[in-house]
Amino acid sequence: MDPSQNGVTAAKGFRAAGVACGLKPNHALDLALVVSDGDCAGAGMFTTNRVQAAPVLYDKETLARNRGAIRAVVANSRCANACTGEPGLDDARAMAAAAAHTLGCRADQVLVLSTGIIGTRLEMDKIRSGIAHAAARLSVEGGADAARAIMTTDTRPKVSALRHRTYTIGGMAKGAGMIHPNMATMLSIITTDAKIAPDRLDRALRAAVSKSFNRISIDGDMSTNDTVLVLANGASEQEMGDEELGDFTDALTQVCTDLAKQIARDGEGATKFVEISVTGAREEDDAARVARAIANSPLVKTALYGNDANWGRVVAAAGYSGVAVEPSTMKLWFGDVNVFANGTPTNFDEQASTRAISGGDVFIRLDLGLGDASAVVWTCDLSHDYVTINGKYRT
Amino acid sequence: MDPSQNGVTAAKGFRAAGVACGLKPNHALDLALVVSDGDCAGAGMFTTNRVQAAPVLYDKETLARNRGAIRAVVANSRCANACTGEPGLDDARAMAAAAAHTLGCRADQVLVLSTGIIGTRLEMDKIRSGIAHAAARLSVEGGADAARAIMTTDTRPKVSALRHRTYTIGGMAKGAGMIHPNMATMLSIITTDAKIAPDRLDRALRAAVSKSFNRISIDGDMSTNDTVLVLANGASEQEMGDEELGDFTDALTQVCTDLAKQIARDGEGATKFVEISVTGAREEDDAARVARAIANSPLVKTALYGNDANWGRVVAAAGYSGVAVEPSTMKLWFGDVNVFANGTPTNFDEQASTRAISGGDVFIRLDLGLGDASAVVWTCDLSHDYVTINGKYRT
Repeated sequence: MDPSQNGVTAAKGFRAAGVACGLKPNHALDLALVVSDGDCAGAGMFTTNRVQAAPVLYDKETLARNRGAIRAVVANSRCANACTGEPGLDDARAMAAAAAHTLGCRADQVLVLSTGIIGTRLEMDKIRSGIAHAAARLSVEGGADAARAIMTTDTRPKVSALRHRTYTIGGMAKGAGMIHPNMATMLSIITTDAKIAPDRLDRALRAAVSKSFNRISIDGDMSTNDTVLVLANGASEQEMGDEELGDFTDALTQVCTDLAKQIARDGEGATKFVEISVTGAREEDDAARVARAIANSPLVKTALYGNDANWGRVVAAAGYSGVAVEPSTMKLWFGDVNVFANGTPTNFDEQASTRAISGGDVFIRLDLGLGDASAVVWTCDLSHDYVTINGKYRT
Repeated sequence: MDPSQNGVTAAKGFRAAGVACGLKPNHALDLALVVSDGDCAGAGMFTTNRVQAAPVLYDKETLARNRGAIRAVVANSRCANACTGEPGLDDARAMAAAAAHTLGCRADQVLVLSTGIIGTRLEMDKIRSGIAHAAARLSVEGGADAARAIMTTDTRPKVSALRHRTYTIGGMAKGAGMIHPNMATMLSIITTDAKIAPDRLDRALRAAVSKSFNRISIDGDMSTNDTVLVLANGASEQEMGDEELGDFTDALTQVCTDLAKQIARDGEGATKFVEISVTGAREEDDAARVARAIANSPLVKTALYGNDANWGRVVAAAGYSGVAVEPSTMKLWFGDVNVFANGTPTNFDEQASTRAISGGDVFIRLDLGLGDASAVVWTCDLSHDYVTINGKYRT
């Protein structure tokens, strides 16, 4: 991973800006603009929630019509433009049109993202002046500000980049609360100077997201706005044909995984980053399902917060995951301490197991003993601060 | 509902006791014995977790063989006898045998229940002396102590009774953490002096549990030990034939619902009791699924804890429930304040909606606008105390 702090502008031919347009108090950055010098292939993945925010509906419609010539993404925080009905959809369209007008392209070449509070309308005057302001400040260095402008309860911006021999992939994301498989309240924009046809880009994105953003979980909730967008402008002139697609998908997966892990690490109120690795499953889907049940268990998450090596709650969560696990073949480790085997706890050293889960990074491994498939899910603990943050979000 | 505090001894021909056998510190009650003067029809419903505690395995086996002549139930708290392998199953058998020996019946006439910490063996000497002690103290008044003896993190005992014209149904339960549809870490014993064949009793129990214990949710976790047992000793000599079965099932459902609501009200760290009523669904299963998604959402539960009338989180949870809801046909009320309709928030009074969720009892109603089916789920809020309790349970 390249330590670049630019994220979405790491690849050739992309510029960005993050500005304060007055949606957030105290002049905090709240509007991001990401622009490509030339037309891009575009692909997106969206929340599976039946209640979908206006920008999600707009982007799906736009990509269905025009996924070969995307030029820009405009994103705002503080207001999700969700549950806003037809007027909200008009606002999303107007937001794209304002960016298109300023950048000198067509409205259907601009995608939009919103995140924040549900049920309030966008303040369009602020959005319009923010877009004008951002367009005047576009730069390669602006990628860092853009990553800050999409933050909500995030405590830090999330960027990543990977320089392949012949092309670069970069990106930014916001996460924090409500993160779940199928991408609950997270936004990410990925950019690349690779040259790739829209249908191949779409396939690569689906494969990458399934092993990255869809493998994190904060609290099991799923938002109305979750979106991952990828733009490929071809500036590197490296064509990704069928032969290069596997390699490109791997690189895209690496960037998405890096961003996804940053989101899990910055979960609302998180004091620990938790990696749950399930091995020995009959199928990968089974492994992922067991890992998610463990990751979503409030009892597992509060135990980790309390430095309680409560293996019983992990075993119980595997038991109710819906996968046909067998207690007698399961083996569980906290760090490198084997705490459970043959249907019963081992004679493990209680101090060693407590130590294994008391640091900032916790590794849990569960071998189901049923097959060869595996999956990893990333999450965080459930703390007093999570309750404080989410008891007060709107106020 | 009869205000009887005796619970399991409200019906004729049952006696009970709750004693301290030393599993819990400070001489707290930790062993309960419920005994019928004559043989009972017995039925049970058990956790669907793949990891099942020894008493669950023992009871299922016992009821499969001998559901027509059950005499007693012996239950302990503090130790779940789960993840204890074959030795744990031997302990469950020995616990039943000890009670049978003391009571002068066969071992396969005794059912056993355990709740508490997973992975530690039962201290059988204490169990044996507790059984002897309890058998010597059996009485009708002992029902109240029995209800206390099965408590873990419960803050109060849970009993209920209903006196029908010709028979009585009474019961006790313990709940608190890990409660979920399919009865996660809850135990309940129901007794009745109605005369009913085992297969009819089984049908009545399944119907009653599906609308009561399976309609509560605390944190979405499901335990290894959840069990509801019902014993019918026929002492009232009122035979429940096919004609009386509907009426009996209704009465049983009332007792189970009363106990289930007491469990939700006493959820770990709960400051509010929350009733979620979903109407206008295409099918009852859809309504229950939407209600459970709302009840299980940490974001909804923390918002309620914080007196935040955050309707957006309720709508979003309905959206990811897996049911094909339509935002444009949904209507949502907090108390009697309609906060959402036609895909957008209504012009509701913010103070009125806050007031509606700020008391100890919160009523949320969501009309899906798609059909005539409905379901109610009961839950509680998610507080700082929930995190404190569950970060420290084992220590």
